[in-house]
Amino acid sequence: MRDRIGRVQRRLQELELQALFLSAPASVRYLFGFTGSNAIGLITSDLSFFATDWRYRDQAQEEVRGAEIVTAYRDLFGALKEKRALPAGVRAGFEEQHLTYQNLAQLRKHFQDVKLVMTDHVIAKLAAEKSPAELEIMRRAARTACAVWDKLLPHLCSGATEADLAAELNYIARKCGSQIEPFEPIVASGPRGALPHGRSSTRPLQPGDMVVIDYGCVVEGYAADFTRTIAVGEPAAKFKQAYRAVREAGELAYAALRPNLQASDLDAVARKHLEKYGLGQFFNHSLGHGLGLDVHMLPRLGPESKDVIPLHAVLAIEPGVYFPGEGGVRIEDNVLVTETGCEILTPVTRELICVE
Amino acid sequence: MRDRIGRVQRRLQELELQALFLSAPASVRYLFGFTGSNAIGLITSDLSFFATDWRYRDQAQEEVRGAEIVTAYRDLFGALKEKRALPAGVRAGFEEQHLTYQNLAQLRKHFQDVKLVMTDHVIAKLAAEKSPAELEIMRRAARTACAVWDKLLPHLCSGATEADLAAELNYIARKCGSQIEPFEPIVASGPRGALPHGRSSTRPLQPGDMVVIDYGCVVEGYAADFTRTIAVGEPAAKFKQAYRAVREAGELAYAALRPNLQASDLDAVARKHLEKYGLGQFFNHSLGHGLGLDVHMLPRLGPESKDVIPLHAVLAIEPGVYFPGEGGVRIEDNVLVTETGCEILTPVTRELICVE
Repeated sequence: MRDRIGRVQRRLQELELQALFLSAPASVRYLFGFTGSNAIGLITSDLSFFATDWRYRDQAQEEVRGAEIVTAYRDLFGALKEKRALPAGVRAGFEEQHLTYQNLAQLRKHFQDVKLVMTDHVIAKLAAEKSPAELEIMRRAARTACAVWDKLLPHLCSGATEADLAAELNYIARKCGSQIEPFEPIVASGPRGALPHGRSSTRPLQPGDMVVIDYGCVVEGYAADFTRTIAVGEPAAKFKQAYRAVREAGELAYAALRPNLQASDLDAVARKHLEKYGLGQFFNHSLGHGLGLDVHMLPRLGPESKDVIPLHAVLAIEPGVYFPGEGGVRIEDNVLVTETGCEILTPVTRELICVE
Repeated sequence: MRDRIGRVQRRLQELELQALFLSAPASVRYLFGFTGSNAIGLITSDLSFFATDWRYRDQAQEEVRGAEIVTAYRDLFGALKEKRALPAGVRAGFEEQHLTYQNLAQLRKHFQDVKLVMTDHVIAKLAAEKSPAELEIMRRAARTACAVWDKLLPHLCSGATEADLAAELNYIARKCGSQIEPFEPIVASGPRGALPHGRSSTRPLQPGDMVVIDYGCVVEGYAADFTRTIAVGEPAAKFKQAYRAVREAGELAYAALRPNLQASDLDAVARKHLEKYGLGQFFNHSLGHGLGLDVHMLPRLGPESKDVIPLHAVLAIEPGVYFPGEGGVRIEDNVLVTETGCEILTPVTRELICVE
């Protein structure tokens, strides 16, 4: 943790900031190791503070490293103020993507003589490049996702409802060692597969369905994010072709992946391939995203992303096509960016599986 | 939905606002019926707009009632602006507890000639008083929580780990008809029971443990929130007394409950009883909270709450005591505020259950 805080302090110098307020749970966890839900942090050029409420007092003592712990009844910014760590006139950043207007008002009230400056993903950018220790954990999270898939397969059959399969999925994932669901699993069958974020319904799988199954696992806080699409019975020619195109789009992206690539260029590799099949208009989300202590982290892999893909980033790459009212296909693997390209962390077959 | 929108429009008149921007998911769901994660709304004195991103285009068509639907690729506030629904100079509220600084900046950019005004829980206050149709659903959610408890009981025994029990709990809840977990269930045994928000660990239950089990169920979007504490083997005298005190504190609160009571007065009934036992210092959270489309809604039932308890509110009442390093006791039921007092929606025994 001290090493990470040191990197933040060096980054603050580059940004001409004397301090940074942390409010995103992933930032607080990354820098101090805290896993609870309500905490903030303050890093200055030579000090670090962590503040949480009384409910987490004991948990903070157990978990937090590298910072002085402050426990407050309610007003965490007020508790930080009492440390008198910020002289008047200093420039202090805050996390604009996370802080609510209400919390910013609180921050302003307590630190009236500090110049508050918006910052853009300071911690997330540092966190994108994983350490060897983090990679060891992320490999385990990815292996857990693969084990879950193996155990889920026997449950996939005509007549099983989406909701029943979602229940099995969560149960299997926890029995395989996943600590929590990082998002509600998606089991979207037939026409519902065209809703990229549809919740599981009571619809039973039926012959002719494509079924999109998208779930996550969490090991020691780090997430895996995995998707396969299966067919119930014999799929229509249109879906067979879509499946092949989506699979190839992902595989072309893996082949193109290397450190320091522009994220938008990687997205373009997959997108152009789908366009060749006339499927570009049906691939209406980005190619993927970074993974780590959150499911959606930097780099963002979309057409408009300005991000660069760093060495040792872990990415979820998830090309898909969606035909409204008919169904969808999505295939998602997790990969580690290596010196020479990438390593697939979820080596599960991408052959189309058809169940009865 | 139209009736709810009408109530908001009348409330806006009282607040001297010509419009209200909605960004909290519970607000958007309450007013328009939308269950997805990314959407905003705009209500003016005579119009309603709902904006979401393309991923939810089809889902919005299925679900949203009472508003014109706008689909945007990314910038939802930009999409609303194009409806030209707000003349220059009008006063428009926003939800200060929810909107991030980044989103507020976006809102300001697109609506430069509108006077943006912070609002405090406009929708949550209206949503606290449930309609007969909502109550019918909330009764089902509470019954589901009771059914889950019955099915969980046989799994509670010495040697079962907290994590295994959490996995069983989620599985049973979904099989009983709960659509989603409104929060990560708490199974906190022995000393871990003193962490009011501790996550389930791999610790096995052991003789002498008190085990706090706190979980939710969701039916048609509405939450139940239920807690029981059990003993493994014979509990220590200290915990027997704590259990009795906590149980009595809750029961005194139910007896005192009536519409239009100050929430802080209800909290005081339970708190004073625990103080009589010398346990006041160990009851270091509020007595409870309202329930509805979110688990934590108005009214807030704490010592500092200024809320009044309305007729037909549904409350989670959860007195507890926590001895650091030793363990905790919490008992939580869901109740409906009636004309004459309250009705317990989770009629599960509060006798202390001891398992082997």
